[in-house]
Amino acid sequence: MKIGKGVHLFYFYMLCLVSIQVFVEGRSISLKKPDPDNAAATARWLVAQNSWGVLNTISSDLGGSPFGNVVSFSDGLPDKGKGIPYFYLTALDPTARDALKDPRASLTVSEHTIGTCGKIDPENPTCAKLTLTGKLKLVDQNSTEAEFARSALFSKHSEMKGWPKSHKFEFFKLKIENIFLIDWFGGPKPITLDQYLHLKM
Amino acid sequence: MKIGKGVHLFYFYMLCLVSIQVFVEGRSISLKKPDPDNAAATARWLVAQNSWGVLNTISSDLGGSPFGNVVSFSDGLPDKGKGIPYFYLTALDPTARDALKDPRASLTVSEHTIGTCGKIDPENPTCAKLTLTGKLKLVDQNSTEAEFARSALFSKHSEMKGWPKSHKFEFFKLKIENIFLIDWFGGPKPITLDQYLHLKM
Repeated sequence: MKIGKGVHLFYFYMLCLVSIQVFVEGRSISLKKPDPDNAAATARWLVAQNSWGVLNTISSDLGGSPFGNVVSFSDGLPDKGKGIPYFYLTALDPTARDALKDPRASLTVSEHTIGTCGKIDPENPTCAKLTLTGKLKLVDQNSTEAEFARSALFSKHSEMKGWPKSHKFEFFKLKIENIFLIDWFGGPKPITLDQYLHLKM
Repeated sequence: MKIGKGVHLFYFYMLCLVSIQVFVEGRSISLKKPDPDNAAATARWLVAQNSWGVLNTISSDLGGSPFGNVVSFSDGLPDKGKGIPYFYLTALDPTARDALKDPRASLTVSEHTIGTCGKIDPENPTCAKLTLTGKLKLVDQNSTEAEFARSALFSKHSEMKGWPKSHKFEFFKLKIENIFLIDWFGGPKPITLDQYLHLKM
């Protein structure tokens, strides 16, 4: 049996479409990756497009060792991020407990989870990686900042709305002090906090 | 023009195949996710199936803050992992420099990067997460252990073979002291180092 060339092309197009969609884990990449020369924009893009990262604290349970934990975060409503990551954490988990004793912390994200590194090794400098270091602070739960954190987080992580009240989740934020970005060969890119926070996306 | 049902089914099958393959980022998941009740097996599976994670050290540049960095790792040849993560690091990067001053470190990996969490939020406890805490140690570069590290890393990260010699990459390993696994509701699962290292996969 012979089928038309057009039908073949249609299926081929569909195959490509499915591949691309699934490759980025079902999320649409609404902003194109910035040019590696634009370091502040790349850092903001990594924070805006990633939905989770590793949040590192000084472990009180493990003799002051650095302890990384997988957490979800958000820096604002989709496509309206402001660069400051907010978290929804419970003190049943060591990360929040650690931060309440010693707020020194860092959040690490990779371009690899966005799905745009292709076959490049995750450690290769052209697959961008970012570490924001600073203080992990509890947000006053009755403030307008807590309202911002709620809408930022719940818009990107809808299941959080239903997480058990008995676990006493609270909003935290990373008060950024240092930005470490590698997005090309030649070592980390210098970015000031002002360049990062006041970037026009 | 009419085409046969068989041809439609063939294309549908191909679409599904592409979706599954791409969903796991081009890698075949050779081992099925263990039952959440089997904590040691789940921890070993997370280390065997992940190719990268966040390696955390005590930052000497940033006043002792915990500093997470995106690194590739391997615990052995594909499907022959032994559970101990090896790394290929350069002292041009802060992680190796930190470890040479203070070896306290942790490696954090998520099930999310393997691609088997589906639509579950990355912070949800059923999307498994693992933190191995211990000491990050330089491997004697002329030892049989360095040969093991080389074959373990280069078999999973082929581009490492061509990384510039001038950067003086060396093999490191995480000497594990504590295992923190969350793979279900109810808090972290207790796993001894012996259970983890001597598990029969």
